[in-house]
Amino acid sequence: MSDDQQMTAAGNEMSASFLAAKRLSEQTKAQLDANPGRFTMLTGDRPTGRLHLGHYFGSIQERVAMQNKGVHSNIIIADYQVITDRDTTEHIEDNVLNLVLDYLAAGIDPTKTMIYTHSAVPAENQLMLPFLSLVTEAELHRNPTVKSEMEASGHALTGLLLTYPVHQACDILFCKANVVPIGKDNLPHVEITRTIARRFNERYAPKHPVFPEPSAILSEAPEIPGLDGRKMSKSYGNSIMLGATAQETTKLIKKSPTDSERRITFDPINRPQVSALLTTAGLVTDRDPKDIAEEIGDAGAGALKQYVIDSVNEFLAPHRERRAELAKDMDSIRDILRDGNNRANAIAEQTLDEVRAAMGMRY
Amino acid sequence: MSDDQQMTAAGNEMSASFLAAKRLSEQTKAQLDANPGRFTMLTGDRPTGRLHLGHYFGSIQERVAMQNKGVHSNIIIADYQVITDRDTTEHIEDNVLNLVLDYLAAGIDPTKTMIYTHSAVPAENQLMLPFLSLVTEAELHRNPTVKSEMEASGHALTGLLLTYPVHQACDILFCKANVVPIGKDNLPHVEITRTIARRFNERYAPKHPVFPEPSAILSEAPEIPGLDGRKMSKSYGNSIMLGATAQETTKLIKKSPTDSERRITFDPINRPQVSALLTTAGLVTDRDPKDIAEEIGDAGAGALKQYVIDSVNEFLAPHRERRAELAKDMDSIRDILRDGNNRANAIAEQTLDEVRAAMGMRY
Repeated sequence: MSDDQQMTAAGNEMSASFLAAKRLSEQTKAQLDANPGRFTMLTGDRPTGRLHLGHYFGSIQERVAMQNKGVHSNIIIADYQVITDRDTTEHIEDNVLNLVLDYLAAGIDPTKTMIYTHSAVPAENQLMLPFLSLVTEAELHRNPTVKSEMEASGHALTGLLLTYPVHQACDILFCKANVVPIGKDNLPHVEITRTIARRFNERYAPKHPVFPEPSAILSEAPEIPGLDGRKMSKSYGNSIMLGATAQETTKLIKKSPTDSERRITFDPINRPQVSALLTTAGLVTDRDPKDIAEEIGDAGAGALKQYVIDSVNEFLAPHRERRAELAKDMDSIRDILRDGNNRANAIAEQTLDEVRAAMGMRY
Repeated sequence: MSDDQQMTAAGNEMSASFLAAKRLSEQTKAQLDANPGRFTMLTGDRPTGRLHLGHYFGSIQERVAMQNKGVHSNIIIADYQVITDRDTTEHIEDNVLNLVLDYLAAGIDPTKTMIYTHSAVPAENQLMLPFLSLVTEAELHRNPTVKSEMEASGHALTGLLLTYPVHQACDILFCKANVVPIGKDNLPHVEITRTIARRFNERYAPKHPVFPEPSAILSEAPEIPGLDGRKMSKSYGNSIMLGATAQETTKLIKKSPTDSERRITFDPINRPQVSALLTTAGLVTDRDPKDIAEEIGDAGAGALKQYVIDSVNEFLAPHRERRAELAKDMDSIRDILRDGNNRANAIAEQTLDEVRAAMGMRY
């Protein structure tokens, strides 16, 4: 078999397993819509910066919808994940509190959704020890996120990054989440979590399983490009922050690059920059980017930008207003986090107790 | 350089670094004798079975001496270490409680020494996460214990065994132990603990270091052979258990193999079995094995065995009597462990709080 053939075979296999995952995801979604109260969901963010429009449409909106459907909802602010690929926790407190502000402004209700920080829940983290005994180093190495993050970091592989799939299993399993909304890149994490849950139950609790084997729900949100058509990234300065002011947003959109063709058309392949602006406007107005392109037509990039500015600022105005209002009382924000942390600790201690009992470690 | 030359060079280097470690150990021991109250010591055992005479002379005796000198003493019962190289926690509760019985019977005073179990202290285990970020996978792999345990286990390397040096760093550093009594095989663990402490302080707490860099005290106890001259091992059935009855001990010694030469001489190289019996008798009577050999002379192996039986049983009688007395009230044993676990949790939570503060993770 030639290298090319091998690559095609691997490609087909990947795509077959992705299609299977997609089918499973659709089944889970249907079950969840029928019986939301039977589902416990875990999702989260790394507090490495502020949330932007990509996060809003890619995950936050979906979390709010699940919460309001009646799914038991949990959001982890994964502060220890910040040091998987960097050497500093600079600005972490600020980043954490701003995440909470954005969650609440976007409609996350802390009486329905438990918001907590990774570093505040020792009993969750203790699960690392039994869970690490259930996976081999080779299995950890096979995780594609570990590989790609290591390459991106430019550092030697740390113990924390190598064991990253196991932390995620702790995050998901400590609250017995049975559904995890993810992008397709994170499928291997859910897979290793299922493996850990299954092995733990088989080895220590064959009669009364302690952990569910969680299902993935694949995000259906399209990949949202940055304003310049590249991937959204803090370092590119091409993302519209949920918490930015209208003025900052106006300035950012005004300076975003376009091309020299006056007539506006939606053509992501050949005109990525103009098309990124159209995609952004389409999302916040819930319109087809092609219709927006047609409407603007020969009015050119200036008119397009003005349309994007107006529609983004209009869309974000209520979010920003709620956010500013909430930010006036940071003590309440801290209280909400503290309350979430307390609830997470109670759940983690209960789960850890069951783990100790299953392993015979109650003295 | 030929392979042979390389090996010799490595051997010399090892021996030079071992000599340096020995010198440091002697300095630490002198400081400890002068100012015992300035030292906090951590040591421990895996609850994989019962303690035997090798443990008594190899470590327990030294722990009692340090405790009575006034060193702040901590003993971890490392229950999670049981699953670094095996797939079951069978009999773990029984093993843990019997360890406590042996500690107390041997003179460990729970009002002076904190005895606790690894699985009972979540805040200690959470230290795994920041600590794992401070070491590379390559550094974990270089640890000789990880290598040798993996080879002995016959399993693929698990995540738990790979990260084993980091658990040990958590055990040592959560209580800010600055001295660790070890056999020379464990020098690399203390080395990686020092590295983790140094890196944490440099990265997160350069002005007010959170962790001490602990020093090793190398055990001066000679390697104690099993009754048959091989290494003491449960699977060889060649160890005298501290908690066995006098009858069981008599039986075990009687069936231990000797050789066909009638005259008893101390010659560990050529007569390992007879010499192991003499070493055992020498330890429990505090006599030179050569003198014992001369005394027995032509009376033969039967007389030697009788001498070993009598001296071991006489030596262990008070231990066994205290042990039997303590075993009458297992609720008290559980209370002692519970009290140690509570104290360990209070210390671990305090340390974790300092770690969170240093990393800016207090929300």
